[in-house]
Amino acid sequence: MLHPQKKDILVANAKNPKYSGVIPPVVTPRTAAGDIDVQGLKNVVEHLINGGVTGLFVLGSSGEVPYLTNAERELVVGTIREANAGRVALIVGANEQTTARVIEEGAKMIALGADALVVTTPYYALSNVAEVEEHFRAIHEALKIDIFAYDVPVRTHVKLAVSSAVKLAKEGVIVGVKDSSGDDVSFRQLLLATADIEGFSVFTGHEVVVDGALLGGAHGVVPGLGNVDPAGYRRLFDAAVAGDWATAAAEQNRLADVFEIVYTPDSSRVSGGAAGLGAFKTAMVAMGLFDSNAMSAPMEALNADEATAIKAILTRTGLL
Amino acid sequence: MLHPQKKDILVANAKNPKYSGVIPPVVTPRTAAGDIDVQGLKNVVEHLINGGVTGLFVLGSSGEVPYLTNAERELVVGTIREANAGRVALIVGANEQTTARVIEEGAKMIALGADALVVTTPYYALSNVAEVEEHFRAIHEALKIDIFAYDVPVRTHVKLAVSSAVKLAKEGVIVGVKDSSGDDVSFRQLLLATADIEGFSVFTGHEVVVDGALLGGAHGVVPGLGNVDPAGYRRLFDAAVAGDWATAAAEQNRLADVFEIVYTPDSSRVSGGAAGLGAFKTAMVAMGLFDSNAMSAPMEALNADEATAIKAILTRTGLL
Amino acid sequence: MLHPQKKDILVANAKNPKYSGVIPPVVTPRTAAGDIDVQGLKNVVEHLINGGVTGLFVLGSSGEVPYLTNAERELVVGTIREANAGRVALIVGANEQTTARVIEEGAKMIALGADALVVTTPYYALSNVAEVEEHFRAIHEALKIDIFAYDVPVRTHVKLAVSSAVKLAKEGVIVGVKDSSGDDVSFRQLLLATADIEGFSVFTGHEVVVDGALLGGAHGVVPGLGNVDPAGYRRLFDAAVAGDWATAAAEQNRLADVFEIVYTPDSSRVSGGAAGLGAFKTAMVAMGLFDSNAMSAPMEALNADEATAIKAILTRTGLL
Amino acid sequence: MLHPQKKDILVANAKNPKYSGVIPPVVTPRTAAGDIDVQGLKNVVEHLINGGVTGLFVLGSSGEVPYLTNAERELVVGTIREANAGRVALIVGANEQTTARVIEEGAKMIALGADALVVTTPYYALSNVAEVEEHFRAIHEALKIDIFAYDVPVRTHVKLAVSSAVKLAKEGVIVGVKDSSGDDVSFRQLLLATADIEGFSVFTGHEVVVDGALLGGAHGVVPGLGNVDPAGYRRLFDAAVAGDWATAAAEQNRLADVFEIVYTPDSSRVSGGAAGLGAFKTAMVAMGLFDSNAMSAPMEALNADEATAIKAILTRTGLL
Repeated sequence: MLHPQKKDILVANAKNPKYSGVIPPVVTPRTAAGDIDVQGLKNVVEHLINGGVTGLFVLGSSGEVPYLTNAERELVVGTIREANAGRVALIVGANEQTTARVIEEGAKMIALGADALVVTTPYYALSNVAEVEEHFRAIHEALKIDIFAYDVPVRTHVKLAVSSAVKLAKEGVIVGVKDSSGDDVSFRQLLLATADIEGFSVFTGHEVVVDGALLGGAHGVVPGLGNVDPAGYRRLFDAAVAGDWATAAAEQNRLADVFEIVYTPDSSRVSGGAAGLGAFKTAMVAMGLFDSNAMSAPMEALNADEATAIKAILTRTGLL
Repeated sequence: MLHPQKKDILVANAKNPKYSGVIPPVVTPRTAAGDIDVQGLKNVVEHLINGGVTGLFVLGSSGEVPYLTNAERELVVGTIREANAGRVALIVGANEQTTARVIEEGAKMIALGADALVVTTPYYALSNVAEVEEHFRAIHEALKIDIFAYDVPVRTHVKLAVSSAVKLAKEGVIVGVKDSSGDDVSFRQLLLATADIEGFSVFTGHEVVVDGALLGGAHGVVPGLGNVDPAGYRRLFDAAVAGDWATAAAEQNRLADVFEIVYTPDSSRVSGGAAGLGAFKTAMVAMGLFDSNAMSAPMEALNADEATAIKAILTRTGLL
Repeated sequence: MLHPQKKDILVANAKNPKYSGVIPPVVTPRTAAGDIDVQGLKNVVEHLINGGVTGLFVLGSSGEVPYLTNAERELVVGTIREANAGRVALIVGANEQTTARVIEEGAKMIALGADALVVTTPYYALSNVAEVEEHFRAIHEALKIDIFAYDVPVRTHVKLAVSSAVKLAKEGVIVGVKDSSGDDVSFRQLLLATADIEGFSVFTGHEVVVDGALLGGAHGVVPGLGNVDPAGYRRLFDAAVAGDWATAAAEQNRLADVFEIVYTPDSSRVSGGAAGLGAFKTAMVAMGLFDSNAMSAPMEALNADEATAIKAILTRTGLL
Repeated sequence: MLHPQKKDILVANAKNPKYSGVIPPVVTPRTAAGDIDVQGLKNVVEHLINGGVTGLFVLGSSGEVPYLTNAERELVVGTIREANAGRVALIVGANEQTTARVIEEGAKMIALGADALVVTTPYYALSNVAEVEEHFRAIHEALKIDIFAYDVPVRTHVKLAVSSAVKLAKEGVIVGVKDSSGDDVSFRQLLLATADIEGFSVFTGHEVVVDGALLGGAHGVVPGLGNVDPAGYRRLFDAAVAGDWATAAAEQNRLADVFEIVYTPDSSRVSGGAAGLGAFKTAMVAMGLFDSNAMSAPMEALNADEATAIKAILTRTGLL
């Protein structure tokens, strides 16, 4: 599997990371009837690659992975693989509660064309640090593929310890970390502790602090908002690589304003999970990428008022 | 499906609950090689029914459900169904992250012989109250079987609101709640608010406060420790039904002493998840029910020192 | 200091506890102008003693202790001491962040007439188990008075470990625990582990599970709702002492219905802290004990609609 | 009160903030006997001002404020005021649970020479957003002095909402926020939302992400580690002001390495609260600023092994 796009990327702070740049977690459009919108999904892939993304994170939280049936997961990965046609790296979530289940899920994803897997700490289970480390080791041993540890305690309720990540990185068990922990202190400590590990990548999953993350040495960003404005994140990344931090910060500030779309939904009606993803989808409908902002049941879609508020934000930030 | 055992149970506080009594969450023995120990599992079923249980909760947390592959889940349910041979009710966990996935899992469990399903709130997902309620409604609508809501915020990180449980009970969506929330205040409020709902059951999942729960009107208990001492829980339940609360409390105090086995593992080595289940399994090995206290990977089994400490507790509480 | 009332109390489950029975945390009425309502406070004391309480917990959370200035704290303790005139035990909160500050506060409270002090784990500080234990030891060493450990993690964000409580009890550092942890499992374990300690008391602070707590061996109850219905809690306690658990449970169920007053406030307007205390005060105004349901600033008082809803509950439960 | 140092500071991203630069939270040295080390404290002030700090944050968490008696608090503020002799701004914590108590404490601190106060959200109390906002308004109304809101949910267990901070800033109730929330997303959003408010300041309290915070527009930093290396933080700040972000990041990386001193204590012995402060004190003893690394009781001081590990870090980072 080639990653031709990576030839073009000079990473600001990194010892030759294997993966870098802008790798958005691809949303999963549904038709108003609730089915996967295959053509819409293809449009999204084209939109992202045209925007300059360097990889696609498939079956992430932004892709509503916990809501997809097994058949839907397969359809999504297959569709994205075909639409991508080898242009950028496919980093695919193997989302299951625990080790043996992740291994089965991961094997499926590899068969479907994943270049790398994204694996969380165990969830629903009540683990300790040693079990978390063994979890990653066993998965790597069984699947022998590039693995990103996905640190997302808001969902798993376990913070991946910096010490565990460093240990697993040095052992070659993981090739990177996707950090959605919201803990910028441990993020910087992870960057410093892994700076000398050849090929290792640290990605931030937080949309509005990418400039600071890159200044601190991050190698890439996995922004849900990148579905809406991939080119903005690519400009931000390129400015950082060029050492033009004032431009990076200005672009980040504009993207932080775009991110205000996630605060438009009425929180008494729409859940935290549905608000952000619903806003992304609603913005993408406004941008003509697909037809419906329907969410996986039982999440509710944003309504017309919320769509109007989102359009206003897209307009003021230059996206409409 | 008949529930012959229930003819014998006079429930102290209940409006004719459909399910009541002692319904332990069945542990899943593994061989030292890590396979499901089918004969051991049959022995456990016999041990439980001989102890007077009124139902079996299959594929619960105590059964290590998050760790079992799909094939293992099917093997466990099939084995228990055959060993039970219709003697007591089979209440089976349909453990998946969200609605559509639970529906698929639940359908499988029904095909395998479940009399009722146990369903948690969504997890990994970030839901709100309305989505939680819709989750249960959609599952009931799709599967049309008795459903217990399983309130286990230590794992799902969502507390099932009393108001939601009451609403779902009145709508006929759920036939009961299995409460492992550790919130005795909301437990009592749930009992009071559902006291007039014909056939509805509230079970406690907490091993050491069953007497108080029954005094407050609970209809049953789902004690992990019931794997070790089902007869003790049956005596406690029968004393409560008979209004002999001093005996119930004394039996509870003895069982609370048995429960000390879960505090024997070294917490610097064994995770919270593995300590309790490991202690149950280790005790059951000591009692001759199966051969190995192996846990699902990556959980570590209890060691010889811990087994010795557990045997001492079993001896002083009359179980060895 | 005599505790004459305790001669009358036969405790169901206890090895001669020094303190037992019903010890409500006394509310602090304010005038509409925001001052401490001294006459109202005297009325409350009379109401409580007439209701059969066996002690008064002064300067607890229900007394709005974190909101009182030092001068107000002194006024409250002095007023209650005078109104009580030695009839029941005065157990007074020494509420400060850390050890040295608690010692200073506690010395003041002793000078003002406290028979015993109530002390929380450190808060605002970030402590560990050893520091928590040293905290209690140092306070006891400095003040040489009966000390209750107050376990209220919803406020301190530290759970007092059962092992710490047992250790401090055996060392004679504490004479009891007031448990508002909402953890009924650790409550039972504390009861069992301290059952043989001469004179030691375990109190529950939870209004709706007192019957179960007493069945499990608790020696007393510190119910905020006891400000509204002290006689109800005394009847519940007496039934438990008499072994009449059906009556105890029935009284508890009635009190749980009274407790519904705390759910009448509009949670979009009234904070969690203000809802419960505001409901108690509003009920007590309805009962004629004082004139205003004003709260310490910035907490908002309940409004007329909420007062009407509360009166309806008081009427249906026989209190109006 | 003049702030002469601020004439020299060109802030990178700010609309003329009244306060900016490096404002460390001053540690409180104690003698081995446990008394406040007055001479040591004076040495610390001189060390900080020589290092280029632009203000002193007195009675912060790093100053062990929750552990100081009232007399000790007064001694600390008086000593620092005298040692400072008007050279830099004194921003003093008014640390109490709730509104009326903060007002009394704040009035004391103003009388002792505070230029501005630092006020947390209420703690121990159970507040809502409206109460938090009223809390700050009432304090400002009563004291009419510059107020910083201190957002430290790890201690108060309440996150100051961005919307509240913005509202209070626009009302003129607060002149700034000291953010120790660890939430870099809300930090950036606060910066963007207050960017146009004349004179308003946003400070980060996190030692290892200052470069990114400044790139995002922060006006200052309140680093506990600034007690150890004030000059390092001043260099970092000056590089940021000069737009030399590569230098800022390199200095930050060096300071992140210095910060490793807080991970040297044995966490099975030393609490989270004592580890960081104890490391700062131990480093400062090694640097000759005072004689003892004693902590406020019941916190334990770091031991000789830990001191040796800290010296090694200070040596490799150029501080010894």
